[in-house]
Amino acid sequence: MSGFGTLFRVTTYGESHCKSVGCIVDGCPPGMELTEADIQPQLSRRRPGQSKLSTPRNEKDQVQIQSGTENGLTLGSPIGMLVHNEDHRPNDYSETDLYPRPSHADWTYIQKYGVKSSSGGGRSSARETIGRVAAGAIAEKILQKANNVEIVAFVSSIGEIAMDRNPTDPKFQNLLNTITREEVDGVGPIRCPDPTVRDEMVKVIEKYRDAKDSIGGVVTCVVRNCPVGLGEPCFDKLEATLAHAMLSLPATKGFEFGSGFYGTQIPGSKHNDMFVFDEERKTLRTKTNNSGGVQGGITNGENIYFSVAFKSAATISQEQETASYEGASGVLAARGRHDPSVTPRAVPIVEAMTALVLVDQLLIQKARDAGRLIVSN
Amino acid sequence: MSGFGTLFRVTTYGESHCKSVGCIVDGCPPGMELTEADIQPQLSRRRPGQSKLSTPRNEKDQVQIQSGTENGLTLGSPIGMLVHNEDHRPNDYSETDLYPRPSHADWTYIQKYGVKSSSGGGRSSARETIGRVAAGAIAEKILQKANNVEIVAFVSSIGEIAMDRNPTDPKFQNLLNTITREEVDGVGPIRCPDPTVRDEMVKVIEKYRDAKDSIGGVVTCVVRNCPVGLGEPCFDKLEATLAHAMLSLPATKGFEFGSGFYGTQIPGSKHNDMFVFDEERKTLRTKTNNSGGVQGGITNGENIYFSVAFKSAATISQEQETASYEGASGVLAARGRHDPSVTPRAVPIVEAMTALVLVDQLLIQKARDAGRLIVSN
Amino acid sequence: MSGFGTLFRVTTYGESHCKSVGCIVDGCPPGMELTEADIQPQLSRRRPGQSKLSTPRNEKDQVQIQSGTENGLTLGSPIGMLVHNEDHRPNDYSETDLYPRPSHADWTYIQKYGVKSSSGGGRSSARETIGRVAAGAIAEKILQKANNVEIVAFVSSIGEIAMDRNPTDPKFQNLLNTITREEVDGVGPIRCPDPTVRDEMVKVIEKYRDAKDSIGGVVTCVVRNCPVGLGEPCFDKLEATLAHAMLSLPATKGFEFGSGFYGTQIPGSKHNDMFVFDEERKTLRTKTNNSGGVQGGITNGENIYFSVAFKSAATISQEQETASYEGASGVLAARGRHDPSVTPRAVPIVEAMTALVLVDQLLIQKARDAGRLIVSN
Amino acid sequence: MSGFGTLFRVTTYGESHCKSVGCIVDGCPPGMELTEADIQPQLSRRRPGQSKLSTPRNEKDQVQIQSGTENGLTLGSPIGMLVHNEDHRPNDYSETDLYPRPSHADWTYIQKYGVKSSSGGGRSSARETIGRVAAGAIAEKILQKANNVEIVAFVSSIGEIAMDRNPTDPKFQNLLNTITREEVDGVGPIRCPDPTVRDEMVKVIEKYRDAKDSIGGVVTCVVRNCPVGLGEPCFDKLEATLAHAMLSLPATKGFEFGSGFYGTQIPGSKHNDMFVFDEERKTLRTKTNNSGGVQGGITNGENIYFSVAFKSAATISQEQETASYEGASGVLAARGRHDPSVTPRAVPIVEAMTALVLVDQLLIQKARDAGRLIVSN
Repeated sequence: MSGFGTLFRVTTYGESHCKSVGCIVDGCPPGMELTEADIQPQLSRRRPGQSKLSTPRNEKDQVQIQSGTENGLTLGSPIGMLVHNEDHRPNDYSETDLYPRPSHADWTYIQKYGVKSSSGGGRSSARETIGRVAAGAIAEKILQKANNVEIVAFVSSIGEIAMDRNPTDPKFQNLLNTITREEVDGVGPIRCPDPTVRDEMVKVIEKYRDAKDSIGGVVTCVVRNCPVGLGEPCFDKLEATLAHAMLSLPATKGFEFGSGFYGTQIPGSKHNDMFVFDEERKTLRTKTNNSGGVQGGITNGENIYFSVAFKSAATISQEQETASYEGASGVLAARGRHDPSVTPRAVPIVEAMTALVLVDQLLIQKARDAGRLIVSN
Repeated sequence: MSGFGTLFRVTTYGESHCKSVGCIVDGCPPGMELTEADIQPQLSRRRPGQSKLSTPRNEKDQVQIQSGTENGLTLGSPIGMLVHNEDHRPNDYSETDLYPRPSHADWTYIQKYGVKSSSGGGRSSARETIGRVAAGAIAEKILQKANNVEIVAFVSSIGEIAMDRNPTDPKFQNLLNTITREEVDGVGPIRCPDPTVRDEMVKVIEKYRDAKDSIGGVVTCVVRNCPVGLGEPCFDKLEATLAHAMLSLPATKGFEFGSGFYGTQIPGSKHNDMFVFDEERKTLRTKTNNSGGVQGGITNGENIYFSVAFKSAATISQEQETASYEGASGVLAARGRHDPSVTPRAVPIVEAMTALVLVDQLLIQKARDAGRLIVSN
Repeated sequence: MSGFGTLFRVTTYGESHCKSVGCIVDGCPPGMELTEADIQPQLSRRRPGQSKLSTPRNEKDQVQIQSGTENGLTLGSPIGMLVHNEDHRPNDYSETDLYPRPSHADWTYIQKYGVKSSSGGGRSSARETIGRVAAGAIAEKILQKANNVEIVAFVSSIGEIAMDRNPTDPKFQNLLNTITREEVDGVGPIRCPDPTVRDEMVKVIEKYRDAKDSIGGVVTCVVRNCPVGLGEPCFDKLEATLAHAMLSLPATKGFEFGSGFYGTQIPGSKHNDMFVFDEERKTLRTKTNNSGGVQGGITNGENIYFSVAFKSAATISQEQETASYEGASGVLAARGRHDPSVTPRAVPIVEAMTALVLVDQLLIQKARDAGRLIVSN
Repeated sequence: MSGFGTLFRVTTYGESHCKSVGCIVDGCPPGMELTEADIQPQLSRRRPGQSKLSTPRNEKDQVQIQSGTENGLTLGSPIGMLVHNEDHRPNDYSETDLYPRPSHADWTYIQKYGVKSSSGGGRSSARETIGRVAAGAIAEKILQKANNVEIVAFVSSIGEIAMDRNPTDPKFQNLLNTITREEVDGVGPIRCPDPTVRDEMVKVIEKYRDAKDSIGGVVTCVVRNCPVGLGEPCFDKLEATLAHAMLSLPATKGFEFGSGFYGTQIPGSKHNDMFVFDEERKTLRTKTNNSGGVQGGITNGENIYFSVAFKSAATISQEQETASYEGASGVLAARGRHDPSVTPRAVPIVEAMTALVLVDQLLIQKARDAGRLIVSN
């Protein structure tokens, strides 16, 4: 289904070749200043065609708010938003008439739905994420107002070129403490804050682009200033809903939270985040943060950080030996140019999904807090 | 919240020190043979105290079906199940009166709920998983009947000792094709099918046990014979709901699906799973399976496989320098013996959550299939 | 929240004065022929301005499908639909700047949301039902294909003028067996099939129109050919979800199912619907149908019928002695002409909500049926 | 499905002949004093066997809290509760082996589930309401603490004997303002506060009891001190969720909110609740309350009141000419004594469902309130 969230719920619609793509955001608190100008920046950040590294399709993607605001203020009612599909070019996809694209969703969509759409993969199109990003921009604004929450994602690896993201390395933790979205974008379309690997990453992408191939990568995301107490045991632990959100993005293959897979190798005595009293904030904090800001599924006020693996894009323009829908062996060559690495463009999408998860959990916890206040009298 | 699933929905209850733990399974199809004997085996597999490797608490964990069956057949009505808590020993936890256990949920629970339970972490207790495993056993039985679905999880790494799980390695893919639950259990409590690393894994656990420390690991799981077409684009892709399920388990830090993080390093031309016609089954299949049996969020009939990272257990009996609830620096030493590695015991829990995800998606897709049949007339 | 349904889910957006109103229909089965022509007729039936009995605002309400279909076939993906708001005229509502309209939602919206919209009642506008009717038209088409389900609503009372709807009266039951939508519309805008009261109803409405007043009424609805077995015990009994759907419509004050309130006066021995074997259909049926086609929350194949009370419209153009937002006593007189009775226009809206309930329950039961088939092998 | 509510969610289980019936209450705020003593009174009020008017089965129905509380305080975790089934006597139901009981759920359950349970109607048993009443008692306690919310239901008609419940009658409104649960119970098992009809009601019930027949009735319920602003436009208007809740109760056939069906006959000019400034409370209030305390689906602080129709009980001990499962005409005579009117026993069940609806909407609105505070800064 195409809805996500409980009290702050986004429902999206749209394929790549229909009239528009968009979403309904239900549960946005009333009285917030909101115009298209709050939403467009993140949509523009996810847009393809921003550099020689990415696909040159010039999608304009101007969002139009349909409802839920008046005089620049949210009403509390559902916010309908849409972006027109302007640049159809369905001919580019005509090869899908004969061949299901390997590792794309053409074949499974037909198996599931029994209908072949001109775009092949229907909702698996990257354009489906437009609705998510638009909704995420609203969520982010709420979070900023709630607690000055900051969400910053960046590219941490491309192919084999990886910046260090060892959770026990103070340099990495320091980066998490300070990195800004401006810094991420400031280094160009690669969106990797580490100067020691950045150029190599660009070269790797160019190499695969020139080879009509593609390469994957990892996006790491940090959330600072997240309120304490978010996350709902037991099935909706914060990391569980984040994992759900991230793995619902096209082309994702993995999710690491806090210390991640590497954390399995650190003995408990070192992995445990010892408590210490923070005199300034007058609260317990932890000396280290292998937990990634969550214990028992509940935020503890430390930085939340996690990484998401994006596989190499399935759509490549080199010839592929595969089989047709009919079962005949053959060679498929996608026409046109295709994005050799979707990873940098995934940055604002990861941020959007993070915001959607957090704002929903925030509102749920606000209800809990109020309930607790009520019953403890 | 404590519910999971849409058409097959489990709701769990219970902490470690209350009268019982259990669950309600709503949406089980009627007319299925079901008694406690179908459920107990997986509960027994998750029980602690099965070997010198794990904690010696002898929890008996006998499940009692309360409702929803009659004469050994399911009625279609909710199946209530419970397991009495027999072995309280709250004194073992008395240190939590003064100190929040590091990297445990004691402190975040108090922040969230404002109430301190005798168990500290409340629902973050491993006993909460009893309800999941009981429900999962029912889900598994349905899946077996549906398509002879086989779900087998096993330990693939302990600390730094890892078996090879390179998705492009035919040996690994062959293991996924053939491994059985009997084989996994047959090698002893370590539950690792790879003889080349198994003994070392045991040694590693023993080392950390002797050091009053703990060590993490990875559980890998394969699903064979999964029907084609399961998974709901866009937010409830199969891998997204699996990620949600897995990261909702205590102590999890990561999730890899199919090629996982390694898949980000394989260029698209090699990562793409080319199609080939299977003459025997009269269907397209893929030559390789880097996708992990899912494309565009929808199962394609190949093996589903994924891995879950479990951090080193937070509860260790060596002294830890931390702070008390009041903020005073001090030393906490957990009394009693504690499980040096929860990873092997996680095997049936991972299987249970997998089954819960799949049976729910199966029923949803059955509704889709029926709908499609209706409207295409 | 603005979503309704589980497997067939509609989410609506839009107030009366924003750019557009619309909805997303998630879960429509793929492969069904669907164009705007399937949806427009019911939208036109709900449109105001159809006669001298109703408000003369000429809303055009042309629906535009945004997504989810291609070449006239549903894809299985979400169907976005919208209707532009063309006829704003917010000046008509300027009196709401000073006075909350009595028995309208102006005041409660401000209490709930803290924001005053130009339309006053925000989502309580009748235009919000456009999304429901559009979605309902799709639902109806599925139901027709499923089992030739027929849903026909009609006006059964206006003010004190009521047609006989005694459930034990064979004439009434016969009407339920035969009434068609064409007959309902054929008698003019009053939409009451009973010629003995129809003219009086029109006169009553005219009387209140001339008095700048309004009058309520009752809409009765019958569903024929509903499949057996729909409805989910215990909280989502068919009549419960229908009641939810109907009372979610603006201006509704009551719901009767089957024998309704009158059924409380019929002793069990007469109220009970005795079984009889239907030789033709080779199934048990009931001799009478006081149950309204449902027993224990589950459809039994007999006609489903129920009635919905619509209060007299709150917006009237005569002067009302009330208080301003500030608390000052005063007189409010709505400008412009207003609909003296919304009841006839409610007919297609009741049909739409009925279809939404039934198609969702149908798909859920199809999953149950499939599950039962699976496990009983 | 067997779950109800979003942030305060109850899931029930149990048929009449299984080991226990019970529920899980998820989302109860932490830190509230709660023991079985808070829950038992309402369970005892719903128990049969309280008078000569009702069935003599002496069900003890002692509730046991399984989880979610410690030292008499709620933890915030799910509260498991159960009541053992002690008094099975399945032989009483052996007639259902041959005959589906008319207007009972025996036949529809078999159609839906394909399985016949010994109790016939499975979850349609009145014992299913035990879980609801237990959960409702917790909900009520929260509401009392929130705003001293008072929920009082009473019998307003039995068969044709009805007390006046004309919404425009000040006497009726005054009754709603003052009636207490003690007064309702104080008049004996008939639970009707109106002395002018009470004795007649008892006689009617006795008449039907002696005739081995049954008779229905109406339960009216008032909620005082409900906070302003509860109810979620558009699908989850307060009256819609109440209607859903009430029609989900066994044997219900109708629901009237505020002025109800009678309200369709009152012209708008009289039906509209004019505003007036309340000097004491410093707020707008309404002079009349035909709206039943809700406008646009949102509570306005006036009394909420509504009525629920309960049909004559289907189980009667006189002979009924009906057909067997096999289709053979025959005569069914239920053994044992049966409740001639379930209406008085429905009183605490109606109160429980009311509390469940309100507490869920209260918590949702608390999240909205908090959200609004956040974003308006």
